[in-house]
Amino acid sequence: MQVGRETPSLSQAAILDAIRSQRTISRVELARVTGLTPATVTTVVRRLMDDGLVVEVGRGASTGGKPRTLLQLKPDSRYAIGVYLGEDAVTYVLSDLSGAVVARWRRRGIGEGTPDATVARIAAEADELVVRAAVDRARLVGLGVVGRGPLRPHTGMVLAPPGLERWVEFPLRERLAAAAGLPVLLDNDATASVVGSYWADGVPATVSMAALFMGNGIGAGVVTDGVVFRGARGNAGEVGHTTIDVDGPVCWCGSRGCVEALAAPPVVVAHARERGLDLGPADRPVLAAFAELARRALRGEPAATELVAQSAGYVAVAAQTLANMYDVDLLVLTGPAFAVAGPLYLPAVSRRLAETFFARGSGPVEVRLSTHGAEASAIGAAALVLQSELAPRG
Amino acid sequence: MQVGRETPSLSQAAILDAIRSQRTISRVELARVTGLTPATVTTVVRRLMDDGLVVEVGRGASTGGKPRTLLQLKPDSRYAIGVYLGEDAVTYVLSDLSGAVVARWRRRGIGEGTPDATVARIAAEADELVVRAAVDRARLVGLGVVGRGPLRPHTGMVLAPPGLERWVEFPLRERLAAAAGLPVLLDNDATASVVGSYWADGVPATVSMAALFMGNGIGAGVVTDGVVFRGARGNAGEVGHTTIDVDGPVCWCGSRGCVEALAAPPVVVAHARERGLDLGPADRPVLAAFAELARRALRGEPAATELVAQSAGYVAVAAQTLANMYDVDLLVLTGPAFAVAGPLYLPAVSRRLAETFFARGSGPVEVRLSTHGAEASAIGAAALVLQSELAPRG
Repeated sequence: MQVGRETPSLSQAAILDAIRSQRTISRVELARVTGLTPATVTTVVRRLMDDGLVVEVGRGASTGGKPRTLLQLKPDSRYAIGVYLGEDAVTYVLSDLSGAVVARWRRRGIGEGTPDATVARIAAEADELVVRAAVDRARLVGLGVVGRGPLRPHTGMVLAPPGLERWVEFPLRERLAAAAGLPVLLDNDATASVVGSYWADGVPATVSMAALFMGNGIGAGVVTDGVVFRGARGNAGEVGHTTIDVDGPVCWCGSRGCVEALAAPPVVVAHARERGLDLGPADRPVLAAFAELARRALRGEPAATELVAQSAGYVAVAAQTLANMYDVDLLVLTGPAFAVAGPLYLPAVSRRLAETFFARGSGPVEVRLSTHGAEASAIGAAALVLQSELAPRG
Repeated sequence: MQVGRETPSLSQAAILDAIRSQRTISRVELARVTGLTPATVTTVVRRLMDDGLVVEVGRGASTGGKPRTLLQLKPDSRYAIGVYLGEDAVTYVLSDLSGAVVARWRRRGIGEGTPDATVARIAAEADELVVRAAVDRARLVGLGVVGRGPLRPHTGMVLAPPGLERWVEFPLRERLAAAAGLPVLLDNDATASVVGSYWADGVPATVSMAALFMGNGIGAGVVTDGVVFRGARGNAGEVGHTTIDVDGPVCWCGSRGCVEALAAPPVVVAHARERGLDLGPADRPVLAAFAELARRALRGEPAATELVAQSAGYVAVAAQTLANMYDVDLLVLTGPAFAVAGPLYLPAVSRRLAETFFARGSGPVEVRLSTHGAEASAIGAAALVLQSELAPRG
């Protein structure tokens, strides 16, 4: 066992997180909720005030002694850009220190273009976002970029789905940092989505939560006690590549019967086209075609309903695996595919967990749709870069 | 995010763990490896010396300044009993403060007898173990008892496999504490097995490890940064109840196609008997019959080889799920079933991870057999009670 380290940066991260989640809080309360000593809290708060990140905002109700001065973040003191590199769309958000999104932009995906051209475009688009939001560039701490795993923190993709092979071993972090002139943090889209949901939805740190993410692929992220579970290489939660049918189809990852190979949007759209459903031109982005299929299912068209229900059945198995493996209180469905089709998946996932979650005798798993489905990854990417740059580890 | 709390008990736990894993260590090194302040280390070490748990043992080499006094645990200062409640055998170990096993005993399983009679028997057998080892009862800190999940910390089983239904909602912890006159800690056998392997095999805290446990059932436990991942209700890692065949057989847990329903010893033995293999009388304990089947497979008998290979193929899928979900460096096969049949399973598991582990591009997962397969859960149970009683949380 190992206790958290009493380093300044971890204490600072814990204090920033606590102020953000409580909005206003006294130093005494900060010591209580972080478990840090009052002396550490006083020192760190003084530094954060000197840096202009935290301000005093009057006094709270007295609890017997003298009234306590309340602290809050100064939201416009720092900003970060979060970028979700989707195959069909790149989503940008500009978040302030409190995690609030002050600007957003959606542009074409990375499914086309060389990595070098794409890096140049992202740097330009990120810059344009900042200019349009009229935010002082000096207050930008960095760029958080998230995409499909498995990733290495520096090189990015080490294994890629069909259509993205040219990204394997491309030094994404280094090239983008050079092009944007900003620190760049690279992470997994599903991991970022759980951080984004956790921040944006104000989930309490006592809740053990997982995000099941569906974009072009399927993944997951887990937060317990307010900490992201990353695993040895930062690739924990790859539920899209758990085998749910040992005799199922071969997956691009090299395995067989993966839930992603059975139920992700590219497969569902391909099945729909095989069955003669008109989802627009063949080169239409997969998620746009998937959204069209979801709209038809929501209108009750039988073939569309059946195809989505089949996918939902497989996705529900993945949700059960995720819940059984991590024993969570809350499961959020997030990502661009659930943003358009979530209501079609939610009942199947809820029902399966109610009936088969292994520890159901100890309490249920709450299942809900993310309120920021399409943006959760980008919000999480910005949150991760704010955490990382303002309280770097080691 | 949340840093570890600076409470005395967590600091004490961290320091005890660090001394145990390093065997001898100076106060300066303790501050370095735990991340605690030198002042905290000095205070906690003084208390541990006052309590007789830690002793000074001379001086280490000087690194320039004055030579540093080395500390080590006093192994015979405290003991704990670990009990693994297997359906076919109950395994007892008596561990000293350093985690070393000073006595062991194996008795008949809990597959027979009422819960009340079994509790009385376990209390008596635990007592006899202590008497035979000639250990001072005053130095016993408690009894760690582990069995099949899902568990609630107080009541024990909330859902049970066939044959153990009478244990559901039985207040195991309370009854056993009363019968034994000792504090009792209740935990999951698979969780305890990873703790036991971590302690007994001296795995460094930097290694992210999982134990895949096979007894009558299949489960898993995970240790990252030296901390057990427990989930919201203490039931994380239930890989035995992940669906690997959506159209597979119904499992006792209420789900379908679980790896436990396809590959665990009771199923393999039943298949063998259906095929006419003579594994002894029908009422022979399942793991004894499974051991007989494994011996035949090791001798190369075709029918036995085929049955075990089929099970190993399914278990390899579960190992892949475990590795993909938790992104571990090391996977250990442990528990009584692997203690007899591990060499038959290891190649299939190693091969599948080498070929399909999702983050393999970032590095391999090492797979090995636990050196304490049959006892790992009991050793872990004793370790958990030592940790819990000597450094209770909150």
